[in-house]
Amino acid sequence: MKINRVLLAGGTHGNELTGAFLIKKFERFPQLIPRYSFKIQTLLSNPKAFAAGVRYIDQDLNRSFGQGFSGEGDLIAYEELRAQEIQQLFGTQGKTPADFIIDLHSTTANMGLTLIIDTEDTFTLQLVAYLSLVHPSIKVYDSGNSGRSQDSLRSLSRFGLAIEVGPIAQGVLAAEFFLQTEALIFSILDYLEKVNHGEVPSLEQQLTTYRYVKAIDYPRNTSGEIQAMIHPQLQFKDYQPLSPGNPLFLSFDGNIINYEEPSTVYPLFINEAAYYEKGIAMCFTDKQQVQVSS
Amino acid sequence: MKINRVLLAGGTHGNELTGAFLIKKFERFPQLIPRYSFKIQTLLSNPKAFAAGVRYIDQDLNRSFGQGFSGEGDLIAYEELRAQEIQQLFGTQGKTPADFIIDLHSTTANMGLTLIIDTEDTFTLQLVAYLSLVHPSIKVYDSGNSGRSQDSLRSLSRFGLAIEVGPIAQGVLAAEFFLQTEALIFSILDYLEKVNHGEVPSLEQQLTTYRYVKAIDYPRNTSGEIQAMIHPQLQFKDYQPLSPGNPLFLSFDGNIINYEEPSTVYPLFINEAAYYEKGIAMCFTDKQQVQVSS
Repeated sequence: MKINRVLLAGGTHGNELTGAFLIKKFERFPQLIPRYSFKIQTLLSNPKAFAAGVRYIDQDLNRSFGQGFSGEGDLIAYEELRAQEIQQLFGTQGKTPADFIIDLHSTTANMGLTLIIDTEDTFTLQLVAYLSLVHPSIKVYDSGNSGRSQDSLRSLSRFGLAIEVGPIAQGVLAAEFFLQTEALIFSILDYLEKVNHGEVPSLEQQLTTYRYVKAIDYPRNTSGEIQAMIHPQLQFKDYQPLSPGNPLFLSFDGNIINYEEPSTVYPLFINEAAYYEKGIAMCFTDKQQVQVSS
Repeated sequence: MKINRVLLAGGTHGNELTGAFLIKKFERFPQLIPRYSFKIQTLLSNPKAFAAGVRYIDQDLNRSFGQGFSGEGDLIAYEELRAQEIQQLFGTQGKTPADFIIDLHSTTANMGLTLIIDTEDTFTLQLVAYLSLVHPSIKVYDSGNSGRSQDSLRSLSRFGLAIEVGPIAQGVLAAEFFLQTEALIFSILDYLEKVNHGEVPSLEQQLTTYRYVKAIDYPRNTSGEIQAMIHPQLQFKDYQPLSPGNPLFLSFDGNIINYEEPSTVYPLFINEAAYYEKGIAMCFTDKQQVQVSS
């Protein structure tokens, strides 16, 4: 296997500044990037949304890939058009196809330093196991069942992942996470360089992954208005077990709504700002032990 | 002195959900509010911005008061029109003038539970001193020199204050701060009730206030693009002393920019998301000891 081109994308959501400014840094200071046997292509994915300081202009760009395109001319959503452009450049049939995509995101949830993968194939698990050794605080979220393996920017290439860091408020550049994300990018690039030189370390180990099960919404009234908030005891408790009887929401009139399903889950994206409109209060995941082999 | 009407406003910035949903709670559950000798009027100040999940539609509503109105008809900014409406209702010459305004805000900065006042008159200082006894973690920020004493919603009434809580990401409802803000509102209402009954406690004490000195911007290039981020050591350090030689910014190419002015200041609103476009990286304040007397 040979990696010829790596696509480093940020600002896929225009108000996630940490990734967007990392792209700008890579573009502005090429002398700070080591030389690799592959080409690094950078992409500020949604420049209009970035300029406007919003997640997207017409629709979520990271849900706009792989579905065919519906609109035409003036009727087409900006992000649909932009997804076409990006696909024509970096997709498998594109002008300069990316063999690996790294897409940079941030979240208002307490996800720390998360790698989002969509498949648990040997190549991806080996990479992620390597990254976990170099950065022990990393968490691995397998979003394969969430739809992102079909409609996200990273789904354009055979291999890739998203880096999701938080908690970071929308519209805020967070230096600590900027530096951590940057270090993680270089570790990924180092690993891909090892791949090209046939020097991949043989890792036989257990790895913990959190697999998407489903998303749950806030309690709402018939007009769709939220009736309760994330319970204070659950706020910022991403990746921690939520067991039957644990508090989930606190209603405005002071009632506690407990988690009542039969099995323990591990919630992620708890109170993510961008997900209110999507009807998502958090995503439930299962915690899995995966055997990584070479 | 008699308080006849208190205006409780929230959602003055549409993406500061904690205050907006407190207004909705007060409107939806009037049975949860004790009876007072004054009337409590509630206001979701910027309903269009709240519905759109943004700070404002055309311009910052909390900078739109007290300046005369420039536009007409279709040309008028939505917030200018809205400011007119609010003034005509609750201003000193309005239909139901407010004697006291409480305006609810949140910030992405680590301001904890902050009371923003614009004058240090005896009435305001006595109130704030009382609130500090009940809620010892409170900080008091005097923004009188910042312009807010002229153009903010709270400037409509002779007395009033803003409650500013954080860190909270824009677009996020934070239960812990929701509950703390609510408790603080009730303490203010309790105090105003004491005023009406002539039962104001006589407080002779020292109070710490942080007085606005000036705002400083991020380092930018000639195109206005940010060149550096808040230094990780300064992030979330609101209300802590910043002394000559302390790190202020970290540039994208790795250089530390230190604070080089001669005297120690106390920065607030460090890395507030809404202030990037205003050219404000933080506000410098002076820490003052004020003698409160009755």
